[in-house]
Amino acid sequence: MTEVKAELISVGTELLLGQIVNTNAAWISEQLADKGISVYYHSAVGDNFNRLADVFREAGKRSDLVFITGGLGPTEDDLTREAFQHISGVEIIEDQDTLNKMEAFFAKNNRMMTPNNRKQAHVFKGSKVLHNSVGIAPGIIVDYNHTLWVFMPGVPREMKAIMTEGVLPFLTDTLALNTVIRSRMLHFIGIGESQLEYELRDLISSQTNPTIAPLASEGEVALRLTAKAENNQEAEQLIDQIEIKIKEQVGQYLYGYDNIGIEKKVFELLKQKQLTIASAESLTGGAFASKVVDQGGASAIFNGAAVVYQPFSKISALKMSEELITAYGTVSEQCAEAMALHVKKVYQSKIGISFTGVAGPEELENQPVGTVYISICDASDQHYTEKFQFNGDRQAIRNRAVKKAFELLFYHLKP
Amino acid sequence: MTEVKAELISVGTELLLGQIVNTNAAWISEQLADKGISVYYHSAVGDNFNRLADVFREAGKRSDLVFITGGLGPTEDDLTREAFQHISGVEIIEDQDTLNKMEAFFAKNNRMMTPNNRKQAHVFKGSKVLHNSVGIAPGIIVDYNHTLWVFMPGVPREMKAIMTEGVLPFLTDTLALNTVIRSRMLHFIGIGESQLEYELRDLISSQTNPTIAPLASEGEVALRLTAKAENNQEAEQLIDQIEIKIKEQVGQYLYGYDNIGIEKKVFELLKQKQLTIASAESLTGGAFASKVVDQGGASAIFNGAAVVYQPFSKISALKMSEELITAYGTVSEQCAEAMALHVKKVYQSKIGISFTGVAGPEELENQPVGTVYISICDASDQHYTEKFQFNGDRQAIRNRAVKKAFELLFYHLKP
Repeated sequence: MTEVKAELISVGTELLLGQIVNTNAAWISEQLADKGISVYYHSAVGDNFNRLADVFREAGKRSDLVFITGGLGPTEDDLTREAFQHISGVEIIEDQDTLNKMEAFFAKNNRMMTPNNRKQAHVFKGSKVLHNSVGIAPGIIVDYNHTLWVFMPGVPREMKAIMTEGVLPFLTDTLALNTVIRSRMLHFIGIGESQLEYELRDLISSQTNPTIAPLASEGEVALRLTAKAENNQEAEQLIDQIEIKIKEQVGQYLYGYDNIGIEKKVFELLKQKQLTIASAESLTGGAFASKVVDQGGASAIFNGAAVVYQPFSKISALKMSEELITAYGTVSEQCAEAMALHVKKVYQSKIGISFTGVAGPEELENQPVGTVYISICDASDQHYTEKFQFNGDRQAIRNRAVKKAFELLFYHLKP
Repeated sequence: MTEVKAELISVGTELLLGQIVNTNAAWISEQLADKGISVYYHSAVGDNFNRLADVFREAGKRSDLVFITGGLGPTEDDLTREAFQHISGVEIIEDQDTLNKMEAFFAKNNRMMTPNNRKQAHVFKGSKVLHNSVGIAPGIIVDYNHTLWVFMPGVPREMKAIMTEGVLPFLTDTLALNTVIRSRMLHFIGIGESQLEYELRDLISSQTNPTIAPLASEGEVALRLTAKAENNQEAEQLIDQIEIKIKEQVGQYLYGYDNIGIEKKVFELLKQKQLTIASAESLTGGAFASKVVDQGGASAIFNGAAVVYQPFSKISALKMSEELITAYGTVSEQCAEAMALHVKKVYQSKIGISFTGVAGPEELENQPVGTVYISICDASDQHYTEKFQFNGDRQAIRNRAVKKAFELLFYHLKP
């Protein structure tokens, strides 16, 4: 199969003003990737005749398949058809089926069909008209100058309906797509993006099928392996082979696949081992607990949390000793360990985890912003405590502390 | 002022695969619109040297100001600098300040700085280097062939910091922007978007300067008033005049301006009234507490929270009566009121607030998913309890409950 080069053009001044986010481009791209069609460019352009014509002309030169969304409505602003006619010379005609449908729609809703509405029934001569099951303006596919042009309304719901019901089946038939693309995500924690890439540098640079793409997110990193093949089985085999090589280098940091997150992984490990957990949180303010409760079925492993944001609430809610707090301060290993132990008792869980530190903006107890202690107290009252120095603002420090806790729990719990 | 024509180029194959939505383009566009700078094109292009070079070349021909985000990281995929060098001939040099900062960062975090990291300190000869206050790779501004080129990392948090702290102030100075555009956000809670628009329909449709743009977000709604004028004072006056008319219609729902959120407003009201609060949370799992702690200085008003996710933890951590839970169940007005009262006592706060309900995916105690009780117990032990039926999935229900609590607290506390 020769590769099909696609590009997407989103039409609408509201995109250029930042009033709406271009979710259409991402959604269409994902659908095309699944079909093995490579998207090389996204563009957004306003409702301006000359600029539309320029962008269309450029797209026709470089792509086999051009998707245009938006600018097909009834108002004078809607210029997509006219601009395409201008660059191609393809005639605009009225589609009788669409017109009938529109008239029925307006009659049914007791609304007057204003003359400008007729414009929504305009299509191109020789085009394929795709029914819009959730709105009025149809999709249009037209073959011009060795490029296939696909026009769809910009309203996401209508675009998705036309794409799913009309465009994708049409493309599958027409392009005789016999390549499948499969992806697998490998998730790592405890290793930074640059170190991961460094360890795998030879593999990444020599690899073309599957490709290996590193993706960093807060506190963890993933690799996306994408294989092209003639069928799913072959694609999966290609991915399996490269995964083995990756594991040889960095397997000890791998925690899961595809849509899993470290929070879910820890949840699964706790569940497997029939362990329950409770958290004592100072600077994180319940953010760890909230992440645990994000998991459906959390009650199997989560007993609760004490957000002890004040020194006195550590005493009143967790029955910690005032002497300990006075002697060591709240930002200390001793305080972290006592919090983890006491929350375990008060909430009757097998494991206790605690967070104490300085989220900022000000220092606390002469400790700099970003200082955080995390302590795990296990089923036999053994303590595992670490001190961290996180960067960033208040939110970033709190988020990093929560993420780090899941990392520590993962390494603590994993077989 | 001659019009400045800007365009945005987002670099990254993950955009073209539909793995991420291009929120950067919308955000940058909005900032530029505020400055009176017109954005004519958005593009997204993958990490491919030739295609990057083509897109850069085209942009240089048609725009005065080109923003490029992404492709500045440490890996071999990151080709933005190289592609720009190729089309411009502008030399790449190493920025010593950035390098020093990076070395300090890695040393502080006890991490190895792998050689590929040095690349993040690469800038252009003669460029202005903009400090990245939340990450490593700096922003870069370079003037080449009558176009101003602005390079920023693709990570939204870093891009936003560099844009706000470096790029926008620089553009204001350099372009001597002499039309001012001023915006004011008015935030409302307790009124839906469609009702707000209905109440203000005549005002919104007749208004051109300032414009009135309604913006809905989860559980609240805002109006963005945007005025163009020759100077700030004139713009502010235009906005003041329209604000008065808006307040006549819907002033009772207005809670604040600009960057305030309802969480901050409630924080300020508690602080003004010298009240402290503690929360008892079941389905919300600490999410309310975490939102309170998001505010810097939260310790002035927040004593803590008991995340009592199990019936027995309500008894062990909050000393609630087992009989009450047995008699009424945990998803009940009685349980909600007892939680609010007991958390107030255990955490020694003036106000207690509680959440109990069914986040799903399963029903609980024969109550449907989405049932939530929120109860406020005030300084004189008076209870204010409401029952809600929220729509959506587990996360949506929990988020709505937390937002609703801030709304209830706002109306409870406001003068």
